[in-house]
Amino acid sequence: MPTAFNPVATIRSKRDGETHAPGQIRAFIEQFSGNAVADYQMSAWLMAALQRGLDDRETVELTEAMLHSGKVLALPSVKAPKIDKHSTGGVGDKISICLAPLVASCGVAVPMISGRGLGHTGGTLDKLEAIAGYRVEIAPSAFERNVRKFGVSMIGQTKELAPADARIYALRDVTATVECIPLIVASILSKKLAEGIDGLVLDVKVGSGAFMKDLKSARELAHALVRVGTRAGKRVVALLTQMDEPIGNTIGNALETREAIEILQNAGPADTRELTLALGSEMLVLGKADKSLKSARVRLERALADGSALQRFIAMVRAQGGDTRMVEHPERLPTARHRIPVLATRAGYVKSCDALALGLVGVALGAGRTRAEQNVDPSAGIQLLKKRGEKISRGEPLAVIHAKSAALAKSQAAAVHDAFSVAHTKPKEKPQILERIAGAAPRPAKR
Amino acid sequence: MPTAFNPVATIRSKRDGETHAPGQIRAFIEQFSGNAVADYQMSAWLMAALQRGLDDRETVELTEAMLHSGKVLALPSVKAPKIDKHSTGGVGDKISICLAPLVASCGVAVPMISGRGLGHTGGTLDKLEAIAGYRVEIAPSAFERNVRKFGVSMIGQTKELAPADARIYALRDVTATVECIPLIVASILSKKLAEGIDGLVLDVKVGSGAFMKDLKSARELAHALVRVGTRAGKRVVALLTQMDEPIGNTIGNALETREAIEILQNAGPADTRELTLALGSEMLVLGKADKSLKSARVRLERALADGSALQRFIAMVRAQGGDTRMVEHPERLPTARHRIPVLATRAGYVKSCDALALGLVGVALGAGRTRAEQNVDPSAGIQLLKKRGEKISRGEPLAVIHAKSAALAKSQAAAVHDAFSVAHTKPKEKPQILERIAGAAPRPAKR
Repeated sequence: MPTAFNPVATIRSKRDGETHAPGQIRAFIEQFSGNAVADYQMSAWLMAALQRGLDDRETVELTEAMLHSGKVLALPSVKAPKIDKHSTGGVGDKISICLAPLVASCGVAVPMISGRGLGHTGGTLDKLEAIAGYRVEIAPSAFERNVRKFGVSMIGQTKELAPADARIYALRDVTATVECIPLIVASILSKKLAEGIDGLVLDVKVGSGAFMKDLKSARELAHALVRVGTRAGKRVVALLTQMDEPIGNTIGNALETREAIEILQNAGPADTRELTLALGSEMLVLGKADKSLKSARVRLERALADGSALQRFIAMVRAQGGDTRMVEHPERLPTARHRIPVLATRAGYVKSCDALALGLVGVALGAGRTRAEQNVDPSAGIQLLKKRGEKISRGEPLAVIHAKSAALAKSQAAAVHDAFSVAHTKPKEKPQILERIAGAAPRPAKR
Repeated sequence: MPTAFNPVATIRSKRDGETHAPGQIRAFIEQFSGNAVADYQMSAWLMAALQRGLDDRETVELTEAMLHSGKVLALPSVKAPKIDKHSTGGVGDKISICLAPLVASCGVAVPMISGRGLGHTGGTLDKLEAIAGYRVEIAPSAFERNVRKFGVSMIGQTKELAPADARIYALRDVTATVECIPLIVASILSKKLAEGIDGLVLDVKVGSGAFMKDLKSARELAHALVRVGTRAGKRVVALLTQMDEPIGNTIGNALETREAIEILQNAGPADTRELTLALGSEMLVLGKADKSLKSARVRLERALADGSALQRFIAMVRAQGGDTRMVEHPERLPTARHRIPVLATRAGYVKSCDALALGLVGVALGAGRTRAEQNVDPSAGIQLLKKRGEKISRGEPLAVIHAKSAALAKSQAAAVHDAFSVAHTKPKEKPQILERIAGAAPRPAKR
């Protein structure tokens, strides 16, 4: 049916709320990659898809079409099961940096391709680059070698992987078509599936600092990711985790890398450690390195305690050109010249510590960016001295701002102060992990 | 509110089904004209508008923004009231060619800017160009002079008039956003209002050969055109007219021009004459040249009978470089080398004579085009010898195909034959004019 694969007929079909015929989305994406579908046609289809929806079969087809628009890594020399983790983005989210080497040290390979920060959400690449010399762009052969030798390599998105997704995402960003669950799912999964993984653990953030502000929409996204990923032949689990408060006690690239190293040193904040262990246990089970989450957690705790996780990280950093002394002695990581404390103006308990507000302060300090082409200041950021539920006296510091100038630090003091709300009574504890959503056993992968 | 006029915020607002703030659509169109809104952003907005709708206030704002994207003619030297007619397009629709000079001869000025044929619907410009030398592109000063001197000038769309509409229409055509009543209304009215008219009569076609196939959608379009045109300060009336059958007994450029001249000679087919008189009466009343449709019709009939309408046409054709001998002796219009009759294969009554099918035959014969850049053959077309309700014997000709080659003519014989359906019993008569929709008195035009 050649007319079914006419671009205008494809747009019309979704415009009218029809389900696309099998192959129709694939043809549309292939035509887009070959410039036979113009940007203005893609954006009209994206808006129609946002309005009318895509079902799971359509979303799988879109995911696979975007995936196959570029190179798909196979990593044939890596014999270990390959499992990755993806977070939908939050504030203070340094989990990947400690999680990936930790899981690798327990026998599951982690070929991790990450992004940069944009807006209030940070990016793993910016954090890794706080380590002098660390190269996030290495050849695919070096990536495969590192995954084989160390069980882990952490690099940046390349132009060869899922290029259709990159073009479509750029269009969505300027055509108000970002907020569409099937499009989000296809975008996330196409990039992750291009890594050649066997399974994926998803950390779907919920709260002020997350893309999904409420539990209902985050749950919808998580279920869709698990369903579509499973249909695409992968083992997939999602955790819904809170993002009303930042993770751990640092925001900013070098500060966060340092905190991640503390976790690998069997120390660090309890919430960062807990999230690392929870996600890591899922990865070990998906990678069939462990039968139960409980035994997986025991093994992960041992790898933190005996230093083997930290050694994996050091080996990977060395292989990718990074200065390992900064890992062994994290005080050598870039530090800001100016540090000013932000004091509590009343006594009580910290009732909340707003992730979005603090993420935006991070951007203002130069730790993040508002446009993709901007550079970040690795040393800038915020140390949180108090978090939700902690007691505070009047005049006691809530946080410390790290900045390249005193004026810049001072300019953000009020915003940091106001990000904390202090109450007379201790707030109820909130769980960090809200829900766990597991997929069915995947269908056999298609050849 | 600068954010309200951010292109992405504008798209998002319509995406979410909101009504745009006053000025928001105008800003969006101005930014599009200045290339600050990209084609892909416009197409996303068009799809959102198609899905979510535009109310009348928004449609007026869109119309006026597109109108003011270019030159708006004022024709200050034309003292007569200026009324135009617009048809939504059909098969065999040569009405403009006889209507415009007829109305002009009765004291109402007709500054008519028309289009070319595309697909199965014909275009007035192609028909006028069947007259050797007739120039559809003349300077605005010559257009104004002709309207002043003869009460009528018929020209083509120029790049200076409503250029935003031209760009938007081109996008709609390739993004499946044509079928949206507010967008259709704004497109039609922005071009017509750019003529500097006081009022507009709309011929909204309904049926197989029309853009609107059923009465309900045609009525919805007609009501929207009348409401929005009235809100934009113009006197507007719409007639819903049938387009299941072609108008008159010719399809094809020279054939149709000849039929229009026959009307001006006080002859020609009854349905072509009736539609001309009905639309003309409305124009005279809108132009305040007559108080009632009845007295207007009497005056129009007189202008046909005394030759004054024909004289107006001849004067205009001469002023625009056309060979007036072709008007005075229509047998001099281009004729096709090959004419083959299409015979009835059964006796009975013509039950229907499908406008769409015959329009497509016209395209195949070279009388129309499928792409804007194609040329047409002025002599090609179809003469209809029998129409709905007429009796036919087996072997008697239904129609004559006019074509530049016998092979081409023969290739269309079956399609022409099949466009006719013949039944035992005489079909019920169908009215040509289905409904009349008049606007309220317009608001005073804005300064």
